[in-house]
Amino acid sequence: MLKDVVRTKTYQNVIYKNSFLFKDKVVLDVGAGTGILSLFCAKVGAKHVYAIECSSMADMAQEIVKLNGYSDVITVIKGKVEEIDLPVPQVDIIISEWMGYFLLYENMLDTVLYARDKWLVKDGLVLPDKASLYLTAIEDADYKADKIEFWNEVYGFDMSCIRKQAMMEPLVDTVDQNQIVTNCQLLKTMDISKMTSGDASFTALFKLIAERDDYIHALVAYFDVSFTKCHKLMGFSTGPKSRGTHWKQTVLYLEDVITICQGEAVVGSITVAPNKKNPRDVDIMLKYSVNGRHCRVSRTQYHRMR
Amino acid sequence: MLKDVVRTKTYQNVIYKNSFLFKDKVVLDVGAGTGILSLFCAKVGAKHVYAIECSSMADMAQEIVKLNGYSDVITVIKGKVEEIDLPVPQVDIIISEWMGYFLLYENMLDTVLYARDKWLVKDGLVLPDKASLYLTAIEDADYKADKIEFWNEVYGFDMSCIRKQAMMEPLVDTVDQNQIVTNCQLLKTMDISKMTSGDASFTALFKLIAERDDYIHALVAYFDVSFTKCHKLMGFSTGPKSRGTHWKQTVLYLEDVITICQGEAVVGSITVAPNKKNPRDVDIMLKYSVNGRHCRVSRTQYHRMR
Repeated sequence: MLKDVVRTKTYQNVIYKNSFLFKDKVVLDVGAGTGILSLFCAKVGAKHVYAIECSSMADMAQEIVKLNGYSDVITVIKGKVEEIDLPVPQVDIIISEWMGYFLLYENMLDTVLYARDKWLVKDGLVLPDKASLYLTAIEDADYKADKIEFWNEVYGFDMSCIRKQAMMEPLVDTVDQNQIVTNCQLLKTMDISKMTSGDASFTALFKLIAERDDYIHALVAYFDVSFTKCHKLMGFSTGPKSRGTHWKQTVLYLEDVITICQGEAVVGSITVAPNKKNPRDVDIMLKYSVNGRHCRVSRTQYHRMR
Repeated sequence: MLKDVVRTKTYQNVIYKNSFLFKDKVVLDVGAGTGILSLFCAKVGAKHVYAIECSSMADMAQEIVKLNGYSDVITVIKGKVEEIDLPVPQVDIIISEWMGYFLLYENMLDTVLYARDKWLVKDGLVLPDKASLYLTAIEDADYKADKIEFWNEVYGFDMSCIRKQAMMEPLVDTVDQNQIVTNCQLLKTMDISKMTSGDASFTALFKLIAERDDYIHALVAYFDVSFTKCHKLMGFSTGPKSRGTHWKQTVLYLEDVITICQGEAVVGSITVAPNKKNPRDVDIMLKYSVNGRHCRVSRTQYHRMR
């Protein structure tokens, strides 16, 4: 993950170029991993950093903190945020890299919100404080053939029941920006400093207007995060037009191949919520319709990230 | 896995081109997955195929068998080989794709041997029946810098304790054949029709002779499997000179960069065994020495696949 330069460099720039935010402040690093964000904060003068990490990586973080001479400033706490005792009643800043694929898959957002409500001082900072989810549509004939239609005939046998499952599972993969057929539409912005856990379940409408005559095989979701409390707005995008990250994009294949003309639109709604039985999974209900010259279709499709 | 063409096509050819082996025989497919090998066997006239699969994929295999009209010939059994009851006392053939990375990592070999000893008729066939592990040495300066030395300085911090761990973990990756500096040496051949579980722990000596002046950064292990009971010997290799498979190769980085001259040798031994505490992990103890014009070194290095 440290090798995701977009991600780590953005956090580094946010911290190094806004040291005034951190000077003499108490910082909580939620899901610290190797402790890299804690080290950045310590370096620019944080009074103390509490780095919480529940995996065995906590031991490594402890060693790294010592190696770099920050044992006095950074306290690594091995355990779950929901279970540990923090040695201080309040913190000034919560920093975290909590985002999952499709922003919300296997993410740590609930944990960040829990920490915010329990320990963050009034008017304290949550970094990042904004996250937005976007949708666009792509031409993807070759990949769809390879990933989905492949199952229709596998070494001479019919495995179409696997095709059904493959259709249902969003695919995390890199989309070339030349595949994009329509505009990109904002679905939802979350304010991490104010939102509740329930705000991560939502329904959003979309209208994707074709910018050229083409075929549409899939919708593609991606997210941005922003740090709006910096001296100057900072952040990064995981969209197909930006430099690649380990989050790539999330591809939702459509049952239909949509023959779309420039100016025509795919309209619909997307409902996102944690799966009721297994809250680590994300349910995505997609409704879309096209009423065009060459294609009229209306469909509801269920996807599930697991 | 089905998309690994080398793997699946070899099994298909073994079965389709040697239908005389399968005609009217009872076959056991250990770790059947989607059931593809069972379908191949059924197609060439097996009397009955028992497809054992312990994961939820068994349900999918069941559906695929039905979809393709083989419900009378193929019986899918969901469960662990060690726990299920087979409806027949004996089988004529055991077929399995049991191989893991480095041949032995998270593999199903023990399960195949268990099935062989419990159900295989005297003079029955195990397919494949031979597996061999090989070793060679490569130049790999760029990748070693990226994968290993990276940790010496990460965004300005010393994370050399992670370097230590990265060095210890063999890396499963594709090696370009142009990186190969020495000959390739056979370490061990296993006869699946006769071996015992203990034979998968062994020590082998090696002597890798440089074919050109170069630097050596890593040793590379890979395996072949063979079906020696076919009309004509069949099989495939996962070596760097063969067409790629999902097994790729296994790279063991050396602490030393060896400056080697053409004709000089890296000699040593490799000891392979399941980890005592966690038998799914593989311990690899490497001893190597070079006594050359520009480089004299002798070292023992421990690797662990987990």
